[in-house]
Amino acid sequence: MDAPTPHAALGPLLGLVGTWRGSGRGSYPTIEPFAYGEEVTFGEAGKPFLAYSQRTWDRPGGGLRHVESGYLRALGEGRVELVVVQPSGVLESHDGSVVGDVPAGSVELRTVAVLSTATAKEVQEVRRAMSWTDDVLRYVVDMAAVGQPLGFHLEAELRRVG
Amino acid sequence: MDAPTPHAALGPLLGLVGTWRGSGRGSYPTIEPFAYGEEVTFGEAGKPFLAYSQRTWDRPGGGLRHVESGYLRALGEGRVELVVVQPSGVLESHDGSVVGDVPAGSVELRTVAVLSTATAKEVQEVRRAMSWTDDVLRYVVDMAAVGQPLGFHLEAELRRVG
Repeated sequence: MDAPTPHAALGPLLGLVGTWRGSGRGSYPTIEPFAYGEEVTFGEAGKPFLAYSQRTWDRPGGGLRHVESGYLRALGEGRVELVVVQPSGVLESHDGSVVGDVPAGSVELRTVAVLSTATAKEVQEVRRAMSWTDDVLRYVVDMAAVGQPLGFHLEAELRRVG
Repeated sequence: MDAPTPHAALGPLLGLVGTWRGSGRGSYPTIEPFAYGEEVTFGEAGKPFLAYSQRTWDRPGGGLRHVESGYLRALGEGRVELVVVQPSGVLESHDGSVVGDVPAGSVELRTVAVLSTATAKEVQEVRRAMSWTDDVLRYVVDMAAVGQPLGFHLEAELRRVG
């Protein structure tokens, strides 16, 4: 493939491009608190979006805990959309905003719609906040699911590894 | 990571695991017919689903045309679900069935729900049929979108490259 020029609409999102690895913790009223390792990749290919993929594990060298993938879309003027799919059968559509100046920036996203397959657990709303510098990426996820109100679910701190 | 044993629920879907490359053609009442190159990957990691990702291009060495990613979920007894997200802002949930005996098999999927972000084009229904042997993967996609009835949209034939 030709090496494309990053799309101008990406703006501060360009600072996310690469691979990030670190650790996080999760809790929710219905489950035991847990810790996890995580790798996140944002890829660009000359289009006004980043391809997003993520995987987490319970312990180094251990099996997969969670994966998800999707696209972070730059709509211009600081507006962004995130569409994400999980193998549990949950599809999420979010919108929000991005601010920053490459390499640093931050994004705030909130759910527009969640679609669950017949066999997936029920998720009502997810809020994602993410901030990054050249070498550190942090995020927090709040969630309303399985009858619980919107509340803390996940936070992680990752370092750039690629 | 430990090398996990493939999940027993995958059944005939195991024949899909790998990377496939080839060419396809597309048409729709609202657009000019087109040809494309494509690479499709199905990955497994010891879980009852395959991670699916795909990219197409207009010509060898050319830029990206389309990408999508998601998960093909094995529910047991030949039932499957496909959840897919596209950077255009379209999220699709499908269910269907799989038949076969590794390495050969086939899947038929039809839309349960389509979710589009505010800025995405309108898609009402997608039907995907896919069949494979050890070295060839073929699929056909029918679609109802932008006010058109369900009709042919895409077909491709890919060869195993990994």
